[in-house]
Amino acid sequence: MTSIPNVNAEILQQAQQRIQQDLETALTAFSIPEPLKAAVFHTVMLGGKRIRPALCYATANLSTDQSNYAAVRRAAVAIELIHCYSLAHDDLPCMDNDLLRRGQPTCHVAFGEDTALLAGDILQSMAFEVLGSRLFDQAISVAAPIVLKQMQILATASSKMVCGQVLDLQAEGQRVDQEHLEKIHRNKTGALIQAAIMMAAVTIFEGTDHAIPKLRQYGQAIGLAFQVQDDILDVISDTDVLGKTAGKDEQVDKSTYPALMGIEQAQVYAQELHDQAFQALAYFGENAADLNQISQFLLSRKS
Amino acid sequence: MTSIPNVNAEILQQAQQRIQQDLETALTAFSIPEPLKAAVFHTVMLGGKRIRPALCYATANLSTDQSNYAAVRRAAVAIELIHCYSLAHDDLPCMDNDLLRRGQPTCHVAFGEDTALLAGDILQSMAFEVLGSRLFDQAISVAAPIVLKQMQILATASSKMVCGQVLDLQAEGQRVDQEHLEKIHRNKTGALIQAAIMMAAVTIFEGTDHAIPKLRQYGQAIGLAFQVQDDILDVISDTDVLGKTAGKDEQVDKSTYPALMGIEQAQVYAQELHDQAFQALAYFGENAADLNQISQFLLSRKS
Repeated sequence: MTSIPNVNAEILQQAQQRIQQDLETALTAFSIPEPLKAAVFHTVMLGGKRIRPALCYATANLSTDQSNYAAVRRAAVAIELIHCYSLAHDDLPCMDNDLLRRGQPTCHVAFGEDTALLAGDILQSMAFEVLGSRLFDQAISVAAPIVLKQMQILATASSKMVCGQVLDLQAEGQRVDQEHLEKIHRNKTGALIQAAIMMAAVTIFEGTDHAIPKLRQYGQAIGLAFQVQDDILDVISDTDVLGKTAGKDEQVDKSTYPALMGIEQAQVYAQELHDQAFQALAYFGENAADLNQISQFLLSRKS
Repeated sequence: MTSIPNVNAEILQQAQQRIQQDLETALTAFSIPEPLKAAVFHTVMLGGKRIRPALCYATANLSTDQSNYAAVRRAAVAIELIHCYSLAHDDLPCMDNDLLRRGQPTCHVAFGEDTALLAGDILQSMAFEVLGSRLFDQAISVAAPIVLKQMQILATASSKMVCGQVLDLQAEGQRVDQEHLEKIHRNKTGALIQAAIMMAAVTIFEGTDHAIPKLRQYGQAIGLAFQVQDDILDVISDTDVLGKTAGKDEQVDKSTYPALMGIEQAQVYAQELHDQAFQALAYFGENAADLNQISQFLLSRKS
């Protein structure tokens, strides 16, 4: 894995800049009392790779019709808020009890458990508020059926994410087979990554296009690939590079791909999943330049 | 307050039966792994007064046009799921650390903190899943703009509820004035009660009717009245009748209406708010029989 050159994912940097601005615009639009406001900003604005928003924008860029782009931007914000809520709750003492996230104190370390709990809670409802808002789009409102589809995709993915968490906790200290491990990760990580793609897909293609099933295939492959890569990086990376505690999976005896099949085989599997992802994108030809670039980055990332 | 006879709220019992069935139908429709499933059922199915669904149905009964009634039933389920999520999280050790709820062990006592946290989390996303689903309505689908309005109302109320929690925690051990206390409770309890009414209102009246502002007035009055009454009951009721620990507010030095203005004045204020609520309903004449009956019950309730 380390032999593949790290792609200069320009498209990812552009996405990071856009989502950072849009998240700040969205959060500032809400009236939230302190210390919750500070906890919410801490949890959301610290950065991170912003993979989900980047996939959302890149999927929208499959089409030259950008008339619904404001709804894509709202979807990107909403999906990142859901991701951030899950981080705040995952880090809590009753869950992973993590003290460090993106090189910074986790939300409950900085603000206390009660505020971290409530920050996660409000981030989830704020995600749906953003979807139903007119943020980034004062003039034109997007057709209600599209927003409704976005909501359905987001809500379902959020529920699946929680189910994946439970399956993951249940599997700790147990040897699970590959089928079960995939079930865990298709829910825990895959569902939200796929949702990022599908929320943009239904907005841009409005559900009538052959593109939708291809993007579903792509989302399934890249969502699982992301988690396999995450498992690998937990083994081979340092805490400094990772920005969170490395080696944590083995420490708590988590079921991971390296634990299941060995590190080399896990790397081969990650490559296979990425190949599947690239194959699904082939349908879009040169229009998929952005999605291809992000996929390349995900395969070669170091953290 | 105790001199007012307890109303035989037949309409409330009917609502309780309907929501109990609909909640079970909804929860059963989801695929949730154990022990999360058991925790979710425990949190949702134990009962409670089901005030919010009852208000939702009763608001829908202001109109004889029942063509969108399936969407009202979904709204009632969704709002109760949000309420139940808030209970599971409120009871956690880092919040109120309550061991007893509706006379039963709270979710974290029965299932552990991690599962109780995740049960609350998934209940929130399930609420939005239910809104966007075709539950109770396989044949006819409700117009997307109505569902979108329901989502906006629910998401906003959920966020306000969390803000109210924070304001409430901040006020512990402090003397706050009536204005601030109202701000706390209009967010913490009032927003979700008002949302129950408004989600039905936009479904039945589709946002064009003069009924909407009247129902907003009613919702504001009854939402605040509910909390004033709750504060009073915490002082004057026994734990047995209440089904949760009585006297808890004083114990943790919470800001309450009895603490602010004395128990008798708080009872007068509860009556005034109920009078405001009844006045708003007068617009609907005899059509408001159900809402009147529920309002009467809320004023005379013992738990």
